[in-house]
Amino acid sequence: MAPAGGSRAKKGILERLDGGEVVVGDGGFLLCLEKRGYVKAGLWTPEAVVEHPEAVRQLHVEFLRAGANVMQTFTFSANEDNMESKWEAVNAAACDLAREVADRGEALVAGGICQTSIYKRHKDEARIKRLFQLQLDVFIRKNVDFLIAEYFEYVEEAVWAVEVLKESGKPVAATMCIGPEGDMHGVAPGDCAVKLVKAGASIIGVNCRFGPETSLKTVALLRDGLQKAGLKAHLMVQSLGFHMPDCGKGGFVDLPEYPFGLEPRVATRWDIQKYARDAYNQGVRFIGGCCGFEPYHIRAIAEELAPERGFLPPASEKHGSWGSGLDMHTKPWIRARARREYWENLLPATGRPFCPSLSKPDA
Amino acid sequence: MAPAGGSRAKKGILERLDGGEVVVGDGGFLLCLEKRGYVKAGLWTPEAVVEHPEAVRQLHVEFLRAGANVMQTFTFSANEDNMESKWEAVNAAACDLAREVADRGEALVAGGICQTSIYKRHKDEARIKRLFQLQLDVFIRKNVDFLIAEYFEYVEEAVWAVEVLKESGKPVAATMCIGPEGDMHGVAPGDCAVKLVKAGASIIGVNCRFGPETSLKTVALLRDGLQKAGLKAHLMVQSLGFHMPDCGKGGFVDLPEYPFGLEPRVATRWDIQKYARDAYNQGVRFIGGCCGFEPYHIRAIAEELAPERGFLPPASEKHGSWGSGLDMHTKPWIRARARREYWENLLPATGRPFCPSLSKPDA
Amino acid sequence: MAPAGGSRAKKGILERLDGGEVVVGDGGFLLCLEKRGYVKAGLWTPEAVVEHPEAVRQLHVEFLRAGANVMQTFTFSANEDNMESKWEAVNAAACDLAREVADRGEALVAGGICQTSIYKRHKDEARIKRLFQLQLDVFIRKNVDFLIAEYFEYVEEAVWAVEVLKESGKPVAATMCIGPEGDMHGVAPGDCAVKLVKAGASIIGVNCRFGPETSLKTVALLRDGLQKAGLKAHLMVQSLGFHMPDCGKGGFVDLPEYPFGLEPRVATRWDIQKYARDAYNQGVRFIGGCCGFEPYHIRAIAEELAPERGFLPPASEKHGSWGSGLDMHTKPWIRARARREYWENLLPATGRPFCPSLSKPDA
Amino acid sequence: MAPAGGSRAKKGILERLDGGEVVVGDGGFLLCLEKRGYVKAGLWTPEAVVEHPEAVRQLHVEFLRAGANVMQTFTFSANEDNMESKWEAVNAAACDLAREVADRGEALVAGGICQTSIYKRHKDEARIKRLFQLQLDVFIRKNVDFLIAEYFEYVEEAVWAVEVLKESGKPVAATMCIGPEGDMHGVAPGDCAVKLVKAGASIIGVNCRFGPETSLKTVALLRDGLQKAGLKAHLMVQSLGFHMPDCGKGGFVDLPEYPFGLEPRVATRWDIQKYARDAYNQGVRFIGGCCGFEPYHIRAIAEELAPERGFLPPASEKHGSWGSGLDMHTKPWIRARARREYWENLLPATGRPFCPSLSKPDA
Repeated sequence: MAPAGGSRAKKGILERLDGGEVVVGDGGFLLCLEKRGYVKAGLWTPEAVVEHPEAVRQLHVEFLRAGANVMQTFTFSANEDNMESKWEAVNAAACDLAREVADRGEALVAGGICQTSIYKRHKDEARIKRLFQLQLDVFIRKNVDFLIAEYFEYVEEAVWAVEVLKESGKPVAATMCIGPEGDMHGVAPGDCAVKLVKAGASIIGVNCRFGPETSLKTVALLRDGLQKAGLKAHLMVQSLGFHMPDCGKGGFVDLPEYPFGLEPRVATRWDIQKYARDAYNQGVRFIGGCCGFEPYHIRAIAEELAPERGFLPPASEKHGSWGSGLDMHTKPWIRARARREYWENLLPATGRPFCPSLSKPDA
Repeated sequence: MAPAGGSRAKKGILERLDGGEVVVGDGGFLLCLEKRGYVKAGLWTPEAVVEHPEAVRQLHVEFLRAGANVMQTFTFSANEDNMESKWEAVNAAACDLAREVADRGEALVAGGICQTSIYKRHKDEARIKRLFQLQLDVFIRKNVDFLIAEYFEYVEEAVWAVEVLKESGKPVAATMCIGPEGDMHGVAPGDCAVKLVKAGASIIGVNCRFGPETSLKTVALLRDGLQKAGLKAHLMVQSLGFHMPDCGKGGFVDLPEYPFGLEPRVATRWDIQKYARDAYNQGVRFIGGCCGFEPYHIRAIAEELAPERGFLPPASEKHGSWGSGLDMHTKPWIRARARREYWENLLPATGRPFCPSLSKPDA
Repeated sequence: MAPAGGSRAKKGILERLDGGEVVVGDGGFLLCLEKRGYVKAGLWTPEAVVEHPEAVRQLHVEFLRAGANVMQTFTFSANEDNMESKWEAVNAAACDLAREVADRGEALVAGGICQTSIYKRHKDEARIKRLFQLQLDVFIRKNVDFLIAEYFEYVEEAVWAVEVLKESGKPVAATMCIGPEGDMHGVAPGDCAVKLVKAGASIIGVNCRFGPETSLKTVALLRDGLQKAGLKAHLMVQSLGFHMPDCGKGGFVDLPEYPFGLEPRVATRWDIQKYARDAYNQGVRFIGGCCGFEPYHIRAIAEELAPERGFLPPASEKHGSWGSGLDMHTKPWIRARARREYWENLLPATGRPFCPSLSKPDA
Repeated sequence: MAPAGGSRAKKGILERLDGGEVVVGDGGFLLCLEKRGYVKAGLWTPEAVVEHPEAVRQLHVEFLRAGANVMQTFTFSANEDNMESKWEAVNAAACDLAREVADRGEALVAGGICQTSIYKRHKDEARIKRLFQLQLDVFIRKNVDFLIAEYFEYVEEAVWAVEVLKESGKPVAATMCIGPEGDMHGVAPGDCAVKLVKAGASIIGVNCRFGPETSLKTVALLRDGLQKAGLKAHLMVQSLGFHMPDCGKGGFVDLPEYPFGLEPRVATRWDIQKYARDAYNQGVRFIGGCCGFEPYHIRAIAEELAPERGFLPPASEKHGSWGSGLDMHTKPWIRARARREYWENLLPATGRPFCPSLSKPDA
């Protein structure tokens, strides 16, 4: 009998990446569900999986429809330290929701852990590893397909996470929330890459904190670090869905707009198609999003890379490539927008003449 | 026995408005569900109600949670002319979905019709009224609580709609998608108001096409028109959730960003709080949104007017008023953002230094 | 014998305008000489004519070279009330400087007076008229060619000025520093126009305070006012050389950038060519500039209207029409800029990503 | 007997710099006189010194009044190759004009040469050096106080210039028009610095092509290069008076606004005070400007460094420090601008809502 939540017939994450496939990740649950009314900014914990499972399920479904091949369990920060006694129920329910939706398509379930709030106060390796282990135990019991350690500011803690996850025998991906300047202790991206791969990560990359362009710049540095060290790993990127050329070393949390005034920075679908293409061109094959990525942004990745993948996502039934659906509009000047050149070259206005283009980070 | 889908115990829309209550409308289904992957831009029809009812239901739930008192049936453009044989099933299912969710709270169901594509080609009153009548028949069968005729560019067609709806005996609201320059034949807003009220509308206002500030300006002109004519009606506004100071007479469809590059224009929750306050101050009591309004925008209306209404919406359990939830953030400069003055005065940047503030409309 | 400073052979201002000629005015002395180090902001008085006559003469020469047909005496605010005992020497020297340069070409000398600072405190008609009369006495002694009463916020005071100047028998032009909302007492532009013409002005218009587009809008209202009243006068415009769409009723003095942060608003030569063309098209024939107009802006007027006038100004020997001088540049992409379409369509960037497009006026 | 044009009593440039004095340079003649009608864009040659000497003299006077300690001869590109037979008269007249004005104050005359257009086509050292020698012969005959080799894209050619000038025995300053990426052959700024000093330059730095911030960044690299090599020289900066964060390696000539749409980028006086302070803080003691620097920008340098220098420039009689002259304005909200914090923190708007913040360079 198949194990509970199993996915026997599906190819695993490494099989896919080793075979040269593009894997499309999902988008950001926290900010998306905050706007839908289920997550509290500031806390940023995923109690919605038990409080409003239908809302979380629906978002999984939308990302699946948009083309995501990976359903990340909505377990961000869901460790004992942040969620107290609720943590276990949340992790278990999150696995079930992700599995239920993943099995409606060809998606894999990835159990996700992230940095702790303990590390900054006290680098207590044993305690931190125990928190990771507890979440991992649930993921193993629920038989997720692979594991993601994400959103680490310090490579030391990320390495601890990889070491714990690695013990399970499941493939491990590790992404840091760093920019080209490296981790918060000043470890360069290339060195972070080497440490993560040596610790056992098969897939490395960055997620969150920085916009598409900066994130890709950092991934390139990771890649170069591995190359110099003669190491190999698959590359992964899950950037913010916001334009952030002006955020400093700390990323978007330092910008004055964080987290309730980010709207003018939201990427268009065309911005994300460019991001997907650029990622692909620099060798990244696991391409998804983080905060700010809504389902239509994930669809944009899947549409941009449809020629390479050979198929469009389900949600493209409701989206003409490059705006082609506008060709039946009644107004001729709107019909004229049903073409790639139009959207590719559009410089969208903000409608906000009193607002600047860029902000100065607070820290 | 109560009629199917009835809502006996609830106060009706006019009871509420006559009693001085603020009624919070819902947001824009078409653009919201387009981003979620269920509506096709260009077509803009609501087949999702039968194809993916769970996605539509979820959005109703989110608006209800956000504080909406009205669940509009997702029947925009769902007449026989646009949707052929599917039209009837769509209207019926839309009523059921709206009712199901409305009855989880104190919300009312509003059956919605909009302008036809026929009118511009041929002002065939009989044929157009028949289309309205067919949708109305479903609404009556499903026993909606009241009716909304919305998104009319021409007051003549809006009057026809009101005349048809009025026959049902249910309260009728009528909103036009016009700006301060008036309808597309040049009928001034004040004159539109008079015609609509004389035709039988109890609630009049504007929806869609223009941003918050312009929409409120137009509603003020409607109000002044009524006053001059010695007529009375309740006022309603459901503006776009986008900043649109630069759109011309035709509204946002003429702007080059429509419909796939509007992101930088999306209103923040604070912009919408201001809109709600301004609407209230100028006497509008039915306040909702249209395209671009996501659940958190509706929550912003409900939060801004909580002092007047005496309660917060359910989704405020996940939202500290004026960013107060940030006061527990670990970074001191982010904690410093947990206050009204901060968000009220923030001029958010776009992160897009090559983009202008304003666009020139195409037409 | 010809009177001192006479210009016997030249056609007078009315002869020119009655004959359908375009008359090109000069630019703004105060701001231009402030940047050159000879005028003190805040004071804004023209003591430079006696302190540094060579600097004032040079600016007259540059405007003449740029195509100006009128040399305004640099006598702004140079009445007894503002300049005490110096006033007379300043007025006399200013006339001499203007005459000396005017006679190097076909330019006329215009004696200029402006509003007093007394009017706002006390509408003492006799005292104010006496101040005007004193300046006029010098202008008559120096035999200027015509008179300009400019920069009036209140039409009542402007009418007093015209009444005084009119007595001299010389042609009188009168320009107010108002926008489309009218004078500071709320007198509409059309009514101002009627009052000024009835008082005896042969040329009316606006100067200063507002940018090119707004100034032309106001002049159109003046024109319509005259038309309705069945009156006739020549039209004149001397707008700011700054973009000011965001200044309120009070004009540029209320904007936070006034007077030391206006740089990003400075008009390009192409903006001014458009202004000249638009002015011409709406029937204005006396076209010059005020604060912010440097010699190259005046040249832009003369170049734009060269087809109508039949000649280019002297300074065009150093300027290829529409950038044609770039066709010999060594870099091909700069040579590619040697054409009208390039400059006409350029949307120049500010290089200031932290600055907004528009400001909110202080008052 | 003193040689013609001598300045016996004045301290020389090295005496001043060795003594720790701040030397204020002058501004940009080409763009300034282009706007006044005396220089042709594209050609950019200084024939105005013979055609309109009074205009050139006046600009020298204004820079002197603004506080400049150096009058550069207006001999940019005035070599035999560019100006044919006119070259000698132009160089001689330029020296006379500079001397005449310099001797009205404590300023020194600097003979200036710049890169040739020959170098890019053919690195003919002998021919190029001969062109430099010819200009130098005039400078020696006219007894200028020191020499400046400026606006070199290639350090090799700059070194040739220094070698020629050095032979005269006069102090030599050398500035390149490069950014932080180095010269057009890819020689890093630090290496350029070493080559120039080894060739005999006593003062090195950058001029033109880049804005204040970038220019200072490059000068810091020059300084670091010298330090590493154990060499010493005085540092000099004469940046553009435009904001240019978006210009690429080639500097402002590659931006689409060059040269006729740069207005929105013009620095305010406050921007230049910051530039002067920053330059001073990083050890630069010869501080002036290039294209875009008008007299009031030079005054801003002199005012900012007045505490260090012990005196204000003559033109400050017409300028209250930090806007203090506004304290007598009649409008209270303008009086409120008479203070440093106001102008230091102002983010000036452009009044151009259709224009972006930044441009993409053409090359």
